[in-house]
Amino acid sequence: MATVIDINSDLGESFGSWSMGDDEAMLEIVTSSNIACGFHAGDPLTMRKTIAAAKVRGVSIGAHVGYSDLVGYGRRDLDIASAELIADVTYQIAAIQGLANALGTSVNYVKPHGALYNRIVHDPVQASAVVEAICEVDDSLAVLGLPNSQFLYLAEKAGLRSVHEAYADRAYTPEGTLVPRSKPGAVLHDPIVIADRMVRLVSEGFVEAIDGSTVRVDADSICVHGDTAGSVQIAQAVRARLTESGIELGPFAAGAIR
Amino acid sequence: MATVIDINSDLGESFGSWSMGDDEAMLEIVTSSNIACGFHAGDPLTMRKTIAAAKVRGVSIGAHVGYSDLVGYGRRDLDIASAELIADVTYQIAAIQGLANALGTSVNYVKPHGALYNRIVHDPVQASAVVEAICEVDDSLAVLGLPNSQFLYLAEKAGLRSVHEAYADRAYTPEGTLVPRSKPGAVLHDPIVIADRMVRLVSEGFVEAIDGSTVRVDADSICVHGDTAGSVQIAQAVRARLTESGIELGPFAAGAIR
Amino acid sequence: MATVIDINSDLGESFGSWSMGDDEAMLEIVTSSNIACGFHAGDPLTMRKTIAAAKVRGVSIGAHVGYSDLVGYGRRDLDIASAELIADVTYQIAAIQGLANALGTSVNYVKPHGALYNRIVHDPVQASAVVEAICEVDDSLAVLGLPNSQFLYLAEKAGLRSVHEAYADRAYTPEGTLVPRSKPGAVLHDPIVIADRMVRLVSEGFVEAIDGSTVRVDADSICVHGDTAGSVQIAQAVRARLTESGIELGPFAAGAIR
Amino acid sequence: MATVIDINSDLGESFGSWSMGDDEAMLEIVTSSNIACGFHAGDPLTMRKTIAAAKVRGVSIGAHVGYSDLVGYGRRDLDIASAELIADVTYQIAAIQGLANALGTSVNYVKPHGALYNRIVHDPVQASAVVEAICEVDDSLAVLGLPNSQFLYLAEKAGLRSVHEAYADRAYTPEGTLVPRSKPGAVLHDPIVIADRMVRLVSEGFVEAIDGSTVRVDADSICVHGDTAGSVQIAQAVRARLTESGIELGPFAAGAIR
Repeated sequence: MATVIDINSDLGESFGSWSMGDDEAMLEIVTSSNIACGFHAGDPLTMRKTIAAAKVRGVSIGAHVGYSDLVGYGRRDLDIASAELIADVTYQIAAIQGLANALGTSVNYVKPHGALYNRIVHDPVQASAVVEAICEVDDSLAVLGLPNSQFLYLAEKAGLRSVHEAYADRAYTPEGTLVPRSKPGAVLHDPIVIADRMVRLVSEGFVEAIDGSTVRVDADSICVHGDTAGSVQIAQAVRARLTESGIELGPFAAGAIR
Repeated sequence: MATVIDINSDLGESFGSWSMGDDEAMLEIVTSSNIACGFHAGDPLTMRKTIAAAKVRGVSIGAHVGYSDLVGYGRRDLDIASAELIADVTYQIAAIQGLANALGTSVNYVKPHGALYNRIVHDPVQASAVVEAICEVDDSLAVLGLPNSQFLYLAEKAGLRSVHEAYADRAYTPEGTLVPRSKPGAVLHDPIVIADRMVRLVSEGFVEAIDGSTVRVDADSICVHGDTAGSVQIAQAVRARLTESGIELGPFAAGAIR
Repeated sequence: MATVIDINSDLGESFGSWSMGDDEAMLEIVTSSNIACGFHAGDPLTMRKTIAAAKVRGVSIGAHVGYSDLVGYGRRDLDIASAELIADVTYQIAAIQGLANALGTSVNYVKPHGALYNRIVHDPVQASAVVEAICEVDDSLAVLGLPNSQFLYLAEKAGLRSVHEAYADRAYTPEGTLVPRSKPGAVLHDPIVIADRMVRLVSEGFVEAIDGSTVRVDADSICVHGDTAGSVQIAQAVRARLTESGIELGPFAAGAIR
Repeated sequence: MATVIDINSDLGESFGSWSMGDDEAMLEIVTSSNIACGFHAGDPLTMRKTIAAAKVRGVSIGAHVGYSDLVGYGRRDLDIASAELIADVTYQIAAIQGLANALGTSVNYVKPHGALYNRIVHDPVQASAVVEAICEVDDSLAVLGLPNSQFLYLAEKAGLRSVHEAYADRAYTPEGTLVPRSKPGAVLHDPIVIADRMVRLVSEGFVEAIDGSTVRVDADSICVHGDTAGSVQIAQAVRARLTESGIELGPFAAGAIR
């Protein structure tokens, strides 16, 4: 039986007349698309177009939910009360589900964005608000996040299917967590090195940590970026090397039907 | 068999820390609540609370969709392209449907708000965009609007259930249309006069026009306001007089189950 | 020579069709008005009207600058980078200055709002960004804030005139800081008690702390609220008792001309 | 004495994390920069950076004021009341003036954007609101607009200095107005053709109209675009050909000092 891995990326991050990222190129690479829901990026028409484009290519659709902060792109930590966060996340998921259903497709999973993603790695209050929102709106949705995060821990406890992701272009500590971006060497740039790491991660379950040691990283999905020309090239290299190595690509969210 | 009439009003129009209208009072009066969806008023938490309050009282829930114009409260005419309007309306309906479903209830109808409402009385392009959005997202939703409007005409043609509404506090022309607000006498203020007009409208199908003639007005729902103390008092008078006159009150959207 | 004290309050916090607070009543009470600049509350037309109303009554005008977070009313802590905060604060001050100048008056001081106010009590990074913005846009502006805050400390170091304020309805610790709102007894409600405390504060420089001890509080301005009927009543009581006690009321910002 | 012409373009139209246009390239071409003020595009930090970049290159700074419609990029006609429009325009001009002053430079003129620009060509109500705002905030500001527009007519009547602009890439009717974009041939694409037309316009005061006739076009400034690679190339061609033809380039707003 072939190993199957998912590749996910953030898509649909344009807003009004402003475009962001090369969605066309990325839709040829990824098997899952994290689509912005209008709070940190995206707008209803952009969402519609992105959903339609993902559907055509058979790419799985996820709700990329974020803080209500357009000018900050959802990247600024926000002290939001649980009741507000639950309502905001429910609203965003519901909106993208309705748009997807209207186009004859559906949303398979939820991935938090930016500052919210980082916050709920360690903050159990906001993490549990996000989990509560998902359970409330549709508990058949999977959640995509960082292994060992509060978010995935609470999601699993609540009975949600949780999916672990690895970051293709990020260095790992010997403990298996991401090296903070502020540290030297935190972000990798060489497409060949990155692609080889991902092949090893998928086939063996290990990557080389920043100190040269070997560390176990469990991942059902690999996150790649598409916001710069360089990042698209890295994503293409990752996909090509995985395929050459006999690894099958497929959306985690479609697991049940494989 | 008793005559049954619906009373609708705009609710959930608070935004963040700003409150608007006396929703508590109005929920004791109306049978249908037009709940703002976050584009011209409302925010996810306000929507949640309003949906929950409507559910508790058995008040029917409608999506009150509007232009994306918070500071203008959706009351400024906007030249929006059809593709954008379709996406905006689909998004709003989907969002409130998801919030309602999450709370164990559902959305029964759609009523456009403010400048959008007025625009699609006569503009077939925007009217058909709104109809297309509703058909796409859920064609079992009823639509609530002005008789003889492009909106209801196109909604019916598309197979949607259309519901006619009358305005309790507005004068009618001999042709059965609303006297424009800019004209003297366009808005009525006396609760007793207004309540009596509504009893006649429901029981006989007629109101006195502004020129003293009698005009036929077909309505399945009466729209009342709750944004001022005076308007709440009018709404209370309308409800009381209808009930005293042996007219049954009930949401149009629940028609099938009566 | 009579003791002179300033009373300040937040005004102009309406937004679009949503109104907040009783500005008419408060303008009869205060000598300085902290006017929202459109980021956390207020909009250009509301600002214009509030400035005009303050001018008519001879009330001093301050720029009430806040985080760019309308739905959160500027009350949610935001991790904003210094460059963004400097630009946001400069923009807000410049906007209100231009509106004031257009109406033949001017802005005398800056007071940060809500979560920004609280943050820069202790965060030197955001505090220094606010100070830098003020120095850049107009270093003749005074700043109004909490004694012993990073904000006032850095403002003074930068050569800005800093004005200390006391909170009429808040309890003080024996160290002279505000008792956190989460603690019992943090907020006072009795207009007579509050008014008497303020007379003592102005005439003697002391208030009774929450533990019954006496604590020194230096203040050139007393902050009162106007967002509820109860708070307006408290503010009226404070003004009345100060006046009865022979204390003169006047804007701190006009100090040089007294 | 050499003929002097101004070249203007829209700059600073990025928003938050979204970038738009090649401002670096355009600042080497234009002599006047229409900088967005945060309502239809731009944000305080983007404004600051754009102002600083314009200052370094000696490019004149104009306030590019627009409707409050970010998602629609100020390109959707909006029925805004005069009092709101006056306040919105005053606010935008004041904000950019303050940011410019803080950086040791100043704003020289006002140019309306998008749908507002088009609306006030013919709508005297909105045109006079914009003029009133400019007079109120700073009547030494010049205004840049379309010859024969209500806007320039009313601006001149109010005593403002009005500057006529021509559009480099647009066809003209025999009456000297722009051929509407919806008509074939309305937009020109060949850099050489466009550049030659502009040389003729500046040196002779005439362009060839769409029907082959010759039409007089008075212009003190030529508007070029920078939002696509093609438009930057056209702008470069226009500048190069004007310079080769011995025409001097300089900001109209600096007229008094030439």
